[in-house]
Amino acid sequence: MRFKILKTDSTSSARTGIVKTDHGEIQTPIFMPVGTQGAVKTVSSAELKSVKTQIILGNTYHLYLRPGTDLINAAGGLHKFMGWDSPILTDSGGFQIFSLARLNKITNEGVEFQSHLDGSRHFLTPEKSMEIQRNLGSDIIMAFDECPPSNADFKNIESAVTRTKVWIETCSRYLEEHPPIYEWNQTMFPIVQGGIVPELRKRSAEDVIPYAKCGIAIGGLAVGEEKSAMLEMIELMDELLPKDQPRYLMGVGTPSDLILAVSRGVDMFDCVMPTRNARNGQFFTSIGKINIRNEKFKSDFSPIDEKCNCETCNNYSRAYLRHLFNINEVLGLRLATIHNLHYYLNLMELMREHIQIGDFQTWSADYLYQISME
Amino acid sequence: MRFKILKTDSTSSARTGIVKTDHGEIQTPIFMPVGTQGAVKTVSSAELKSVKTQIILGNTYHLYLRPGTDLINAAGGLHKFMGWDSPILTDSGGFQIFSLARLNKITNEGVEFQSHLDGSRHFLTPEKSMEIQRNLGSDIIMAFDECPPSNADFKNIESAVTRTKVWIETCSRYLEEHPPIYEWNQTMFPIVQGGIVPELRKRSAEDVIPYAKCGIAIGGLAVGEEKSAMLEMIELMDELLPKDQPRYLMGVGTPSDLILAVSRGVDMFDCVMPTRNARNGQFFTSIGKINIRNEKFKSDFSPIDEKCNCETCNNYSRAYLRHLFNINEVLGLRLATIHNLHYYLNLMELMREHIQIGDFQTWSADYLYQISME
Repeated sequence: MRFKILKTDSTSSARTGIVKTDHGEIQTPIFMPVGTQGAVKTVSSAELKSVKTQIILGNTYHLYLRPGTDLINAAGGLHKFMGWDSPILTDSGGFQIFSLARLNKITNEGVEFQSHLDGSRHFLTPEKSMEIQRNLGSDIIMAFDECPPSNADFKNIESAVTRTKVWIETCSRYLEEHPPIYEWNQTMFPIVQGGIVPELRKRSAEDVIPYAKCGIAIGGLAVGEEKSAMLEMIELMDELLPKDQPRYLMGVGTPSDLILAVSRGVDMFDCVMPTRNARNGQFFTSIGKINIRNEKFKSDFSPIDEKCNCETCNNYSRAYLRHLFNINEVLGLRLATIHNLHYYLNLMELMREHIQIGDFQTWSADYLYQISME
Repeated sequence: MRFKILKTDSTSSARTGIVKTDHGEIQTPIFMPVGTQGAVKTVSSAELKSVKTQIILGNTYHLYLRPGTDLINAAGGLHKFMGWDSPILTDSGGFQIFSLARLNKITNEGVEFQSHLDGSRHFLTPEKSMEIQRNLGSDIIMAFDECPPSNADFKNIESAVTRTKVWIETCSRYLEEHPPIYEWNQTMFPIVQGGIVPELRKRSAEDVIPYAKCGIAIGGLAVGEEKSAMLEMIELMDELLPKDQPRYLMGVGTPSDLILAVSRGVDMFDCVMPTRNARNGQFFTSIGKINIRNEKFKSDFSPIDEKCNCETCNNYSRAYLRHLFNINEVLGLRLATIHNLHYYLNLMELMREHIQIGDFQTWSADYLYQISME
């Protein structure tokens, strides 16, 4: 994998670039739709392409439990299994264990947990996470880290930083000893932890940077902390992380988060927000969010967003979409997902364009004002 | 609306034809996907087109209750409301009242019922059914008839035949006095009732044929009677109904039903089977039905049907589709629906081709044998 910076903004840390993978190029800054269980919920691969998706994220925890590593290996990897021929990033499984599963024990060797599906017991180690991700065949493998909860105290965050350091070393060694299974390369991104404690963030960055070959992730943010604290941490990361590698801010975020993080030097994002909110009837528009179940849209035959040219806005009215949500018709979930993903990916494209032409800061100030008008 | 017969089979009553409507032409024999509530469940208008859908069916009962006649009128009719620019046939609402709603009273004036959604009381009359269908703006309006249950005795079937005669006269007069609301024509199909009693079928046919201008429907079949009895009734209808009008067999049926009915002179069909069964994981194939939840498909990376070229078979494996059903991912419901609709519409196209080239009877014998091999 290689990363090339195309343009750096003169008044902020925003930059455009290209990540080259064996499954194609990714224009950054980029947003990655979340395909939790081998599918971005409600949409097909062709639809992901139609909204200009360049890379998707797959969840190791979910895929390990269902359909299982062996089956995806037998299919020839996750790309082939799900019919997606562009890049894939997989997470390490750690975050879901900490948030979804019943956690039994954490040691320096790994994490013992019970499946949220059937209560079955599993032991996930750095080695096993790497082994699963090798079998999934993702272009970008995430290191196995410990992500402490937002209410963790200094001691717990420090302990997670230390364990993350131990584990990244294990991950790195395992991958050196076990080359890719399929005929394409895989690149591991280390993850910086440290909560919102500058001292620990700095220590974690120093710990994991040596393992970053082409890409590094900022983990442990957007877990409940104040937005100002999150932005401060991103600024600190911008100072500390190598400029010549893509930076991935995990699990972020709202449209305004994306803009504010891009201006602070972040290149890659993932979040369930566009897809999950879609399934709850919430649409993102160029002038803010709307909830389609609202009575005021009952006889509104205009599209969700007059300025949008997605399949949903080109063909269907607010009144019709509201009807689909009222009758619980799954077509509605999909049309909403298509619109929201189009919105997110179009927003990233707008940012790339404005960084490229040199007016990113004035454009983003206007845009942030517009979407706050909802 | 006009109907033109293109070719009549020399060894059966099968024929090909063209129905011309103001929303375009329909090649017959044809199958109509069911769009109950203003959407064919799980699929978009573009997808309906991609599987070669020529005409869809809308349900008056459901649309009357939600989103309501006024809203669809405000949208400019059902075509515009749901983004479907090809022909639409709407049923009269009667069948759903008899099968879904709580029926309170039937008189010669109409039917009093309570909504299955909220228990609200409604009174549907022949006039009101016509008025709703005028507002929906369907190309083909179905007459308001009484469809007795499959276990009805002679007296009840006779009473339904008599009431159907009274009501068709009311429907016809109402439409004469109330021309179409929108800028296209609407044609009413009368419905023949009579259960599986030849004498009553004959009487009902004589009653309603005078009201058939371009199209007539065979109702009250596929409601639980023996298949042989259904086929006998279709044969009787083939003798009695005008040859120069399209015949629509309501609510039928399985792939073999379609073939057997086409050979008995039927031109149009509708049924929830391809879409409903899809949502239950049942796929129709050229060698019979398969249920994708079956364990034996776990590691089967071949498509649903090697001979099929639908979006689902072109892009996804049985193992992947099984996984989608296992995780209750709605993408699976849609990919199954696309495949099954493609199967049904492709089957109709095959029939048209074989009628046209003159080997319909030998082809259909082979095909019926193949799909019985499941």
